[in-house]
Order: sequence, then C-alpha cells, then structure tokens
Amino acid sequence: MNSSQQNQQIVLAEHPSGVPTLDTFNIEDIAMPTMQADDEVDKVIIKSLYVSVDPGMRGFMDKGHDDAAGNKFQLNQPITSRSVAQVIDSQDAKFKAGDIVHGRFAWQRYQSVSSKDIEKVDATLAPISTAVSMLGVPGLAAYFGLLEVGDIEAGETVVVSGAAGSVGSIASQIAKIKGCKVIGIAGSDQKIAYLKNELGVDKAINYKTTDDMAAAIQEACPQGVDVFFDNVGGETFDAVLVNLNRHGRIAVCGQIAEYNQEQPPIGPRPMHTLIKKSARMQGFVVFDYSEDFAEAKKQIAQWYNDGKIRYKEHLIEGFDQLPAAFIGLFSGENIGKLMVKVAEAD
Amino acid sequence: MNSSQQNQQIVLAEHPSGVPTLDTFNIEDIAMPTMQADDEVDKVIIKSLYVSVDPGMRGFMDKGHDDAAGNKFQLNQPITSRSVAQVIDSQDAKFKAGDIVHGRFAWQRYQSVSSKDIEKVDATLAPISTAVSMLGVPGLAAYFGLLEVGDIEAGETVVVSGAAGSVGSIASQIAKIKGCKVIGIAGSDQKIAYLKNELGVDKAINYKTTDDMAAAIQEACPQGVDVFFDNVGGETFDAVLVNLNRHGRIAVCGQIAEYNQEQPPIGPRPMHTLIKKSARMQGFVVFDYSEDFAEAKKQIAQWYNDGKIRYKEHLIEGFDQLPAAFIGLFSGENIGKLMVKVAEAD
Repeated sequence: MNSSQQNQQIVLAEHPSGVPTLDTFNIEDIAMPTMQADDEVDKVIIKSLYVSVDPGMRGFMDKGHDDAAGNKFQLNQPITSRSVAQVIDSQDAKFKAGDIVHGRFAWQRYQSVSSKDIEKVDATLAPISTAVSMLGVPGLAAYFGLLEVGDIEAGETVVVSGAAGSVGSIASQIAKIKGCKVIGIAGSDQKIAYLKNELGVDKAINYKTTDDMAAAIQEACPQGVDVFFDNVGGETFDAVLVNLNRHGRIAVCGQIAEYNQEQPPIGPRPMHTLIKKSARMQGFVVFDYSEDFAEAKKQIAQWYNDGKIRYKEHLIEGFDQLPAAFIGLFSGENIGKLMVKVAEAD
Repeated sequence: MNSSQQNQQIVLAEHPSGVPTLDTFNIEDIAMPTMQADDEVDKVIIKSLYVSVDPGMRGFMDKGHDDAAGNKFQLNQPITSRSVAQVIDSQDAKFKAGDIVHGRFAWQRYQSVSSKDIEKVDATLAPISTAVSMLGVPGLAAYFGLLEVGDIEAGETVVVSGAAGSVGSIASQIAKIKGCKVIGIAGSDQKIAYLKNELGVDKAINYKTTDDMAAAIQEACPQGVDVFFDNVGGETFDAVLVNLNRHGRIAVCGQIAEYNQEQPPIGPRPMHTLIKKSARMQGFVVFDYSEDFAEAKKQIAQWYNDGKIRYKEHLIEGFDQLPAAFIGLFSGENIGKLMVKVAEAD
C-alpha cells in the first residue's frame, strides 16, 4: 500500500429535499485503513477503482424507518454503492494483493472490508468495470426483468423506458436477441440516435419532444404492447399502459421520475386497466434471482463477446466527482452506465 | 309455452353519468319469441329464472369504443347478464323442454338464443341458482383469483376486500380451507358479523367506521399481508399496499370503488412499492381460466356439500326489479350474491 496517499471519504451531510445538491455530501480526509485482528471475520484492504452511481440510491438518502434491509445512509457516515476495487492486503487466503473484486463498498479511496462481502471479478469475461455495469446490477436487472418478470417471447412487442440508460440499453438488446420488436423511449435526440444506430431498436421515441406519448406508442406498436420494461414511471407509464395488450406484462424495474419527489406521486390508478387486460405488473430487484447470477453473467458476457450486445459506459474521472456524477443522473444526460473512475488498477 | 304471458325486456335508455338511476333503464312489452328456421344455428327458446346483477356491468353502460369483446350495451337494446333459465322449446336435440341452462342472456322474460350460447346446469351439484353465483362467475373468480393469481399457501396472511360480497365471501372461505389467516374488509356491522360468525374469518374490519385503515390492517396482520384479493380498489387498496410483504401478490378482481367515476380515478402510484417489495399485482377475468371451469365447479360444489363453504344469495323477486337491484349494488347493502328471481322453474 502506498501510504503517502491521503485517504478520503464522502459522507451524507444532510438528507436532501428533492434533487440532491453538492451540499448533500461532504468530502473528508480520513486515515488509511489498517489491518486489525478480528476473531469473527477475515479482513481485506481494498482500493476503489470504479464506483457506480445509481438512481435507486436516492431513496436511501431520505430519513425514515422503512429500512428492514439496512440500506439507508446515515448522516455523517459514508455513502455506499456497488464498486470495483483492487485488493491491497488480505487476511483471507482466497484473496491476494492485486486481485480485482467487487461489492457494495463505502465511498472511500481505501477501506477495510470483510472478505465475506467481496467477490472476485472474472477479468476474462469482459473489462473489469463491467462488474458493476453490464455484468453487475444493471445488466442483471435487464436480464431477469425481461426473461423472468416480463417473460418475453419471440415476436412480441416490447417497450423499454429509459432505454438509453444502464439497464434500458441492455434490456433493449436482450429483447432484440430474443426476437422481439423493441421500442425504446428516451429523452434526447442523441439518445434516440444511439438507440437506433448502435442498439438497433425498431423504433425510438423522444418523450421530451412528443406531445401525445400514448398516440406515439400506439403508432409505433400497431400490434399493441406485450411487455413493458419500465425504468421511469410517471406519465410514461400511463402512456404505455393504455397500449398494453391482453395478458400484457409490466416489469417494474425503476421509477426515476419519482425518486426525488417529496410525496408519493399520484397518478391514474392502473387497477381497472389491469383487470380489463388480465395484465400483470410486477416489481423486482435483481437479488431475487441471485442464485442464477453466475449463469446470467456468463450469458451476457457471451452475447457481448459475440458482438450481440454493445455496452457504453459514461465514465467520469476522479473520486471528488462522485457527488456531481450522482446528481447528474437526474438530469438525464448520461447514455449508458454512469460511473466514476477513482483510480487505475496497479 | 304459455302464450298468454306478456313478454318484456329491459333496455339501456341512456348512458348513465356516475351511479345509474331508474332513468338509465326502460322496461318494454315485446312479442313472445318464435322458433324461426335458421340454417346456421339451432335455436332454443328459454324462460329467465334467475338473473345476476354484477358491478362489472357498469362499465358496459358507458359510451365508448374500447370494446373488442363486444360487451358494451347499446342504447335501446336489452341489457345482458349471466342468468339461469329454463328451456321451453329447442331445435337442438341436446336440449329439451324443462332443462335448466345458464349463459349470458338478455334481460327478457322469454327469448330465443343459439344453442351454442347455453350450457346445461347440473342440478345435482347445488341449487340451480348457484350456476350464476357460487358455481358461476363470482365463485370461479374467487377460486382462480386466489389459487392461480394469488397463489396462496398455507400459513400465509390473506386480506379480502368486499369480503361479504358474492366473490369475497367465497374467496374468504377458500383461503380458510387452504390454511391461510384471513382478514375480511367490509362496510357494515351486519357484514362484519356475517364474516366473523358465518364465514369464520380471523378478523373483520369495517372500513366505514375505521379512521386509519392502514393502521387497522397492520394491527390485524402482525406478520404483514402476503396476498390481497381486491374487489374494491381506491383507498382500501392503498391501505393494504403499505402492509404488503416482500413477494406479496395482489389479485385485482374488481374495483367497485371506481366503476361509477366519470374520470379514471387518481391515487398514489403503486410502482415504487412494488419494486421495494418485489411484489406482483395482477388483473384477471375468470374466462382466462375457462379450460379449468369444470374442475373448479366440482371442487367448489364438493366444499359446499361438505359444509366447508357457506353461500348466501340476496334474492330480489320480480323482473321489473332488475334496474333497482343493479343500482343497489353500489350502495353496498347486499350480503352475498345479489340476484333477481324472475320466475319459478316449471
């Protein structure tokens, strides 16, 4: 370990109202981690390399008690997110200095973690950063959301919202691989071009320049919508719902439209439509399918290496850019997975 | 056929706004049906005996074009609903005078129907009126909604709204038979007593006298709610949703709270909660499961004959009472299946 390096962390300075600002976070100098003896667990010291910022983290920043999973960020405690790191030192023989690992780590340049909380990255599958993008939660959410929750079949029409984002871009391509007609919804001309030209969707709709989304979806989906993979929620959801076919399925993956709202958003109740269409709407988190992660990663990597899946990372450089990167998620600028490169692997 | 009998029909006089009134309907004298030759189909002349009135019919009274299934009632044309009738005359050898049949028939005392549109009632299973109640759409909705959509398991906590109604009363009892803890929600003290004393639910909550439904459900369901069988929608839905367990399921069967609203109702969007709980919300109509009707009817009849299911019919006498009976559905007075007895079987 290069002990001349100053260690730093980023903590939650205050619970944000609405969209977080730089004041939500505080960056602090801290001591380098040391390898302390612990009877219970083997420790590993790691250096952060790639840190993921995800819309779903917004919910963990609120005050509140509905947190059986222990996900809420505490004031003056470091933010955590999925990250790729490198092992500096290890008490566990399964890990050695230089190994690339991933897990949910603190926003710290260096930290000490339990060896139970890290997993090795298989660098033969794809670039190591993909362990928190294409082969991490976003890619797995796309995979299980479409194949298990959405239960897509060849020939069906699939609509993906947030289609240029980290999850949506993979979902759009998996639906194409499976023989579906794919309509992507996104919010800029640049994203629409990316969807059409690089991801190969059948149609792409810019919701920011479309007055009547329900009519636009109807026009793009003359056979109706069989599966809706929803990363967005809000009025986009409403516009797709009216076009849903009988026995349609909605995989509810994310709801970025509402994460920064102070009150639970209100909108048209979907229940009556679900009855009329014998339709299913199902929320999920990837960890519902953790037993099948290895197989899914192998499949996604295979598609990637066969050139059937393209993947774009939107990399921002520098540990101190983490707050700005997170805030930027909600302005809808990123194409592909937004993450921060903190350091090079040694 | 007793041709001295005056035939009558009830037609849709106007599209109602909000709750239908007597002006919504018109009762008319019409000629008795005659057995006309038809190359295409065999005709059967039937006499109506028991006519079902169902909340879901309200949607068919609106103007509108979203009616792929051809369910909408037309102005000055007879209302139709599930009915039990007796065969008077038949061109099809499979039916003979005196047979009891059921189907979706016009609100007419006597009518001519295609023999393809009628089905014999097996009077050995249960009283013939149950062909449109316990062994008809309401009972089948309870059966498939709980077992297929809700996928209940022994030991789970099941909440049923509209629990004293035609569907809810059967659903509550099937959930008990399957070893679940059952909480019934209804809107009068008389219904609460019925649920507790006759149907044997574990707890019953009167939503009309309960200020904080979410708290009342939490208290009644200390282990949370695994399955919600929803006949009602609206604020009752919201109160149950916050108590739903991880991997909870909502079988969306009816939404009587909204059938008379002019505009699609708005309410808190449920999507974020579905994600946090990996929960599923699924609409259905019984005809999704028509291949399994025979087996389901046999099972329900078996439970009934074993004394495991009690069934209450709220019978109103007289063909001319059909409009008032239908309107009465929305005042929430009926316990059990509301239907109109038009005539005795010969």
